[in-house]
Amino acid sequence: MTNTTQYLKKIGIEAKKASHLMAKASTQQKNDALSILIQLLNSKAKALLKANEKDVQEAKKNKMDHAFIDRLIITSKSIDSMIKGIQDIIDLKDPVGEIMHLNMRPSGIQVGQMRVALGVIGMIYESRPNVTIDAASLAIKSGNAIILRGGSESISSNIALRNLIHEALKKAGLSIQAVQVIDSADRSIVNGMIKLNDYIDVIIPRGGKSLNKMISDQATVPVIKHLDGNCHVFIDKDADLNKSLKIIENSKTQRLGTCNTAESLLISRDIAANFLPKIIKMLHQHKVEIRGCKKTLQLIKGINAASEDDFYTEYLDAIISCKIVDNTDDAIRHINQYSSHHTDTIVTENYDCAMRFLKEVDSSSVMVNASTRFADGFEYGLGAEIGISTNKLHARGPVGLEGLTSLKYIVLGNGHIRK
Amino acid sequence: MTNTTQYLKKIGIEAKKASHLMAKASTQQKNDALSILIQLLNSKAKALLKANEKDVQEAKKNKMDHAFIDRLIITSKSIDSMIKGIQDIIDLKDPVGEIMHLNMRPSGIQVGQMRVALGVIGMIYESRPNVTIDAASLAIKSGNAIILRGGSESISSNIALRNLIHEALKKAGLSIQAVQVIDSADRSIVNGMIKLNDYIDVIIPRGGKSLNKMISDQATVPVIKHLDGNCHVFIDKDADLNKSLKIIENSKTQRLGTCNTAESLLISRDIAANFLPKIIKMLHQHKVEIRGCKKTLQLIKGINAASEDDFYTEYLDAIISCKIVDNTDDAIRHINQYSSHHTDTIVTENYDCAMRFLKEVDSSSVMVNASTRFADGFEYGLGAEIGISTNKLHARGPVGLEGLTSLKYIVLGNGHIRK
Repeated sequence: MTNTTQYLKKIGIEAKKASHLMAKASTQQKNDALSILIQLLNSKAKALLKANEKDVQEAKKNKMDHAFIDRLIITSKSIDSMIKGIQDIIDLKDPVGEIMHLNMRPSGIQVGQMRVALGVIGMIYESRPNVTIDAASLAIKSGNAIILRGGSESISSNIALRNLIHEALKKAGLSIQAVQVIDSADRSIVNGMIKLNDYIDVIIPRGGKSLNKMISDQATVPVIKHLDGNCHVFIDKDADLNKSLKIIENSKTQRLGTCNTAESLLISRDIAANFLPKIIKMLHQHKVEIRGCKKTLQLIKGINAASEDDFYTEYLDAIISCKIVDNTDDAIRHINQYSSHHTDTIVTENYDCAMRFLKEVDSSSVMVNASTRFADGFEYGLGAEIGISTNKLHARGPVGLEGLTSLKYIVLGNGHIRK
Repeated sequence: MTNTTQYLKKIGIEAKKASHLMAKASTQQKNDALSILIQLLNSKAKALLKANEKDVQEAKKNKMDHAFIDRLIITSKSIDSMIKGIQDIIDLKDPVGEIMHLNMRPSGIQVGQMRVALGVIGMIYESRPNVTIDAASLAIKSGNAIILRGGSESISSNIALRNLIHEALKKAGLSIQAVQVIDSADRSIVNGMIKLNDYIDVIIPRGGKSLNKMISDQATVPVIKHLDGNCHVFIDKDADLNKSLKIIENSKTQRLGTCNTAESLLISRDIAANFLPKIIKMLHQHKVEIRGCKKTLQLIKGINAASEDDFYTEYLDAIISCKIVDNTDDAIRHINQYSSHHTDTIVTENYDCAMRFLKEVDSSSVMVNASTRFADGFEYGLGAEIGISTNKLHARGPVGLEGLTSLKYIVLGNGHIRK
């Protein structure tokens, strides 16, 4: 056994043990731990900022770029935002223990389902210390244990946060092993975690494309995948022009770098000549580059051609691909082929087209007359999200507390046997 | 690209295409296909029996054992049972398209969830031709496409069944590619299927332990796992003796070889001296061998000792392990460590013990005062099952139509954008 294997096994055994205790913790205890964590984030902010300062200095020394340091840095404003996040989670209903569908069967037994914690979550993420607090709080409230493996550049911040979390768990009478932070920068640990089937029930990666893809491809532990957000806005022949303009503008330009930003515009050929010049004018005002299909280029002069690859691309930038489609069916076909199955929206006043789009587009969020930017745990009322899943199995779309639980069957009898 | 890779890619592309058509097929069309399949099983039974006869002869020539041939053989009685299964599936509510939890959000959008088909199911099983009909029927009703890879010894039967299924799909106006049967005995196909992430959405293995374990360990496509059924009966200190005897007898002896058969008996030390002799007498009448822990051996003379391994073992035979535990908490601890998380039951008249057992035992089915033999799709009212899942994510326990679907988010707006 290598050192890494031994280290992970030890962490795994402790996490599994803690998960059994967390699974039966009362709502009061779990909320107490979260409330104490809020107090500690307030009272010990100074020490936390100091620990973070160490990471930031190191990152600057290593010439990390501005965006990286921006994500890494903890300010008193970001502490307030962590606290707000924890308070939201306290306010959410405890999902654990809910019993549903308890029906009497002809045999005389009652069969139903009970919502229970998943067990041990393995979270692998990059250098955003706020994720440490978000993920730990969601795990605590959902009755799970969690193993956190953040970016090596935020280790000092994560250790400081872990100390606060452990103090809160201890004061609430819960096991500190319920939240473990891996404080080694050894990259072999990630490879070990994603194959630790005996102790970890689900892996949640939250990072860049290459990290997510590596984990999806190699993990043997089930993964709540978060892959690309190649999101589409489809303007149907019966779309309202003003709604179209508003929804495209918001979906593409409100924020360029988020996974629910639109990356591709589809428009029905019946209205392309009328709508497209106005849409492109609006996008040009926002300095968005349009890459068009052949028909688009025939209609609009002076824009770049889209390659086949463009239609598969999540730009995360001021670029959008554009394709003129025959009709709603053609749009659905295109989306089901090119979309990353994250979020796609139709703009239409036509009931039949709206219903077909809703039913047939195979994505985690499918929308009618709404901006793709709404695909978000808070906007959906989940209160907080640990990620946006592009899985088909288990949780699909924004994953909140419920996505960190599963349903087991329960059977109530009174001495019943099977005939 | 090897021949296998090319072959699987072709099948995968066709299945994916068919899955989009199946996802939007009407309930009427899907039920029509199933009704026609019933007619064909009746009218073409003779040809089917003849095809099966070929497999059976071959198996006899290869000196396969009696149990194997028993599973392989199709009789007019087993055709009736297939037909009954299909009729049950026709009678079930179509799960696809159901919309739930459609709530208005403060932003003005309505957010809900819609139940949709998973896409393409890859089913890998051994030589039970009835599985071909069960799995195809469940896939059709749930709006999925399915790729069936049965045991090589049943190829002739499976081709005959495929021909009937294709005729039924065609007559109902559905794509015959929705149900594909792999008619090659090449074992590399299984290895290819479990890594065919671009085309297969879920793999369901249904076979022996070694097949299931190989697939769980090596698949990169998500697997609905069906691992061991090391099921426990726990007799609590407040158990009723008669209920205990009935439930142990039924759980252990009704059928020895099923996954929901009890393999381990736990009994509270407070009642062991009183109950255990009576329980063991009953088990001996059924010729069940008892392998006991140290305390059991002190109490009962002339029985064999259980090793540590025994407590992990699914015997599928007339053997049961037996352990005297301190109390309910000790029983829960033991089960959470040794159980395969399939089905475990407590016998007790004590409310608190029953509730703790229900909440804290981490298995796909947890029961009170009922035989473990009830863990079954038909007994639970699912109508039919494609397997019993020991996964924690997605479906847990018996998997029926709903387990072959997932929920996507839907958002209804009227030109709404995110602020």
